[in-house]
Amino acid sequence: MIANQEELTKLRFNEAGLIPAVVQSAESKRVLMVAWMNLESIHKTFELGESVFFSRSRGEIWHKGATSGNTQRVLKVEVDCDRDCLLIQVEEGGPACHNGTESCFDTSVLGEAGTTNG
Amino acid sequence: MIANQEELTKLRFNEAGLIPAVVQSAESKRVLMVAWMNLESIHKTFELGESVFFSRSRGEIWHKGATSGNTQRVLKVEVDCDRDCLLIQVEEGGPACHNGTESCFDTSVLGEAGTTNG
Repeated sequence: MIANQEELTKLRFNEAGLIPAVVQSAESKRVLMVAWMNLESIHKTFELGESVFFSRSRGEIWHKGATSGNTQRVLKVEVDCDRDCLLIQVEEGGPACHNGTESCFDTSVLGEAGTTNG
Repeated sequence: MIANQEELTKLRFNEAGLIPAVVQSAESKRVLMVAWMNLESIHKTFELGESVFFSRSRGEIWHKGATSGNTQRVLKVEVDCDRDCLLIQVEEGGPACHNGTESCFDTSVLGEAGTTNG
């Protein structure tokens, strides 16, 4: 899988050299997780055809699923109009969340329409 | 629309007091945009039942669609397992992107599966 080099040079990383990546299941359309990438992890993602992030807590490259086996096969990487965010369409190899749920957003709800104060 | 107060106090904002919010169309399931919220914009989102962000470039609260008319009615706000990212399901009032496209990710593609170096 190869990256469009012109698009790659136009990406806007933050002051820490990172760009947020939203990961979406191409099949269920569920948003699975949001993680960060640096240039090296983007290169590795294209090299492997699987999601590779940069772990801010561990300060290192993180090949998603290398330990759990739940890798994500990358089908498409889109860039937003500000060029400071990525949207990655993946084929899920298993639950994205370490809690075992499909999505990291399956944990809790801050609120829903239809709830009122009175 | 009311926020779950316990979930609200557990949110983890970054050093600038912001949390990223992924906005998804509840109907088309397209990821529309990623923007940032502070506590005030979250309160306003729940008060109005419409997306309200914090504009980092302008340094102010930004009621999405206040100028363009393309507001986003909020149906559900989910929190990820790390409590440092939000996923907002919305009913679209019009194109999310200032370029006139449904999604801010409709602009450019960094790469797709099936492309190889030969």
